[in-house]
Amino acid sequence: MSVSSGGPAAAPAMRNGLAPAWGDLPGHRVEFGRDRPFRLDSGVELGPFTVAYQTYGRLNADKSNAILVCHALTGDQYVAETHPVTGKPGWWEMLVGPGQVVDTERWFVICANVLGGCLGTSGPRDIDPATGQPWGLSFPVITIADMVRSQKLLIEHLGIEKLFCVIGGSMGGMQVLQWATSYPDRVFSAVPIATAARHSAQNIAFHEVGRQAIMADPDWCGGDYLQQGRRPGAGLAVARMAAHITYLSEAALHRKFGRALQDRTGLSYGFDADFQVESYLRHQGSTFVERFDANSYLYITRAMDYFDIAAEHGGVLANAFRGSPTRFCLFSFTSDWLFPTSESRAVVHALNAAAANVSFVEIDSDKGHDAFLLDEPEFHATLRGFLAGCADHWSRGR
Amino acid sequence: MSVSSGGPAAAPAMRNGLAPAWGDLPGHRVEFGRDRPFRLDSGVELGPFTVAYQTYGRLNADKSNAILVCHALTGDQYVAETHPVTGKPGWWEMLVGPGQVVDTERWFVICANVLGGCLGTSGPRDIDPATGQPWGLSFPVITIADMVRSQKLLIEHLGIEKLFCVIGGSMGGMQVLQWATSYPDRVFSAVPIATAARHSAQNIAFHEVGRQAIMADPDWCGGDYLQQGRRPGAGLAVARMAAHITYLSEAALHRKFGRALQDRTGLSYGFDADFQVESYLRHQGSTFVERFDANSYLYITRAMDYFDIAAEHGGVLANAFRGSPTRFCLFSFTSDWLFPTSESRAVVHALNAAAANVSFVEIDSDKGHDAFLLDEPEFHATLRGFLAGCADHWSRGR
Repeated sequence: MSVSSGGPAAAPAMRNGLAPAWGDLPGHRVEFGRDRPFRLDSGVELGPFTVAYQTYGRLNADKSNAILVCHALTGDQYVAETHPVTGKPGWWEMLVGPGQVVDTERWFVICANVLGGCLGTSGPRDIDPATGQPWGLSFPVITIADMVRSQKLLIEHLGIEKLFCVIGGSMGGMQVLQWATSYPDRVFSAVPIATAARHSAQNIAFHEVGRQAIMADPDWCGGDYLQQGRRPGAGLAVARMAAHITYLSEAALHRKFGRALQDRTGLSYGFDADFQVESYLRHQGSTFVERFDANSYLYITRAMDYFDIAAEHGGVLANAFRGSPTRFCLFSFTSDWLFPTSESRAVVHALNAAAANVSFVEIDSDKGHDAFLLDEPEFHATLRGFLAGCADHWSRGR
Repeated sequence: MSVSSGGPAAAPAMRNGLAPAWGDLPGHRVEFGRDRPFRLDSGVELGPFTVAYQTYGRLNADKSNAILVCHALTGDQYVAETHPVTGKPGWWEMLVGPGQVVDTERWFVICANVLGGCLGTSGPRDIDPATGQPWGLSFPVITIADMVRSQKLLIEHLGIEKLFCVIGGSMGGMQVLQWATSYPDRVFSAVPIATAARHSAQNIAFHEVGRQAIMADPDWCGGDYLQQGRRPGAGLAVARMAAHITYLSEAALHRKFGRALQDRTGLSYGFDADFQVESYLRHQGSTFVERFDANSYLYITRAMDYFDIAAEHGGVLANAFRGSPTRFCLFSFTSDWLFPTSESRAVVHALNAAAANVSFVEIDSDKGHDAFLLDEPEFHATLRGFLAGCADHWSRGR
């Protein structure tokens, strides 16, 4: 189990323009919930269900070198290898790999596709065993805590008692915070990046726009598009376009595109993509549709909207962290307006109020929310130092 | 001509859920472009075409008390009276009316529906005389300068040589800047509010999302929905929802809604509007569809995207204002992230570089871009003072 699923995989053929079914995707699979029911926050019991995951590096003999990476809304388990659908590099190769900040020659890195996802872990595009048809909207609504609960089953399955670190950005950071509050004794260190302890009204609003765009597409078919051989590609593309703007910053868009025209010398006086930024956005929409399931987008955005750690602890965020043994290091980025520094600071204040062990670094960047995925030397250097320091503490403590 | 079109009008019956044709709407109409061709920036000659406008107050004998109000993207000419379609108060009644900051007992206020609009001035939902069918996408693409050119015809038609003031927010502010640069001798004072001298890459991106949402709706029919008796309501609602978020601020959304639930005590674990902010946003989308034309939305967003005053002046914004006799007063709002203070400041710097007469006030507000439409006492008091001061200068100068 300690070996990665292998090197770069060729992109399998697309079937009817859909992403390949999870059975075709490379990587590990494990089934849960057959013997023991898996109770979701909604009260629904889900099972059996599959968790698809990738690993990088080698688990050491005493299983003390495991780092769990939690992926963001449209991320997946292909952290540090060529993506099997898009053929592009893994989404965090900048950070994870041999000799990288998260050095897979030292650490055993695990990443699982989230519950409700569409890259192998059970979600609305999979077959409901009760009906033999795709779940669609009959798939139960899941929460960030449900995702983390399923990851805990995976970690137990791998025989790992305590994770050296749980790390992730954006929705991945929400999972990190959930791990640290649900299972504090299993998390030696936690790195929540560009995230928040609760989803803001503005962010719920942006998600609702995306969901409405998908549900307005007649090819969504009330969620039953798979049975009907259709696909709400136009709606999903609009959802992605709107979301994509929120991942960047005005400064980054200005720097990258400004008002530059696309393949023309003058305005067309029409509705083609005159501006490079329009062309770029359309491309973001159309490529996303090739790798993501529209219903999964509904479910995962909903899970983020529902996220509110303080609500589980009497409305007081600090209560979530009382007595926490975990070492925290939070990161935010100055130009991130989706998960602004104020959100990270609220978590830091709560951790301080609980006398937890916490570091916080705001990175100066004009790259917006996506900075956590990009080449940010100060972020990477600080994280490298934090992990090294935690490794010292861990080895002294054992 | 100096009398207002009258008091509150009852909302006329909606026809097939469409906004009433302009012929049914109350107010003034004037036709241009029949004798003299009206050449658009695109090179197309438009004519004949109609400009629909409202006036408030009384034009004085020497026609020296005229204030032209320019409306924003989804605004219209019903500035200070009950809206004939929605039955709601005029969009700037907070500011314009008897005894208000823009006092209609003193000033003669004019506002025209913009070219390309859908409330009476010619736009894509009107009949193309050449075909007898609605223009749809065969209506020529228009620019902010085209809008202003048509307003100049109206001002000439009203016999007004020089406007005491041109005022407007957002796209209205773009028109103010265009007036001041195209016809400096006809503008004694100019009040561009919450605006910019060019549309930013991020704002073009948000507009493109809205356009794609409309064009993705099968009921858009390639723009020919009127002929086919259909209507891209779902797409237009999504466009409005996305845009509406940009008109507010995170702080305003948090203050108004936070994570409060809508008519329920707990999460539904479904895709209904659990949160008040979702319900609010859906309402914004659905009510907008009742009063606005989808193709007009395409045309007017395009006009804003194309706006770039410096580009008309060798790329140097200050050149646009060289020798300007106009007195400027600009306003921005601290929480406006659609037209942030930096954009107003760029205009102020250019005006200063041209040694123009300019005041600039950044108003502290958490209400976002929409603050210019709302009760902002400091904004109103400052504007009142500016208008009074300009009136003194104007009377001394005559």
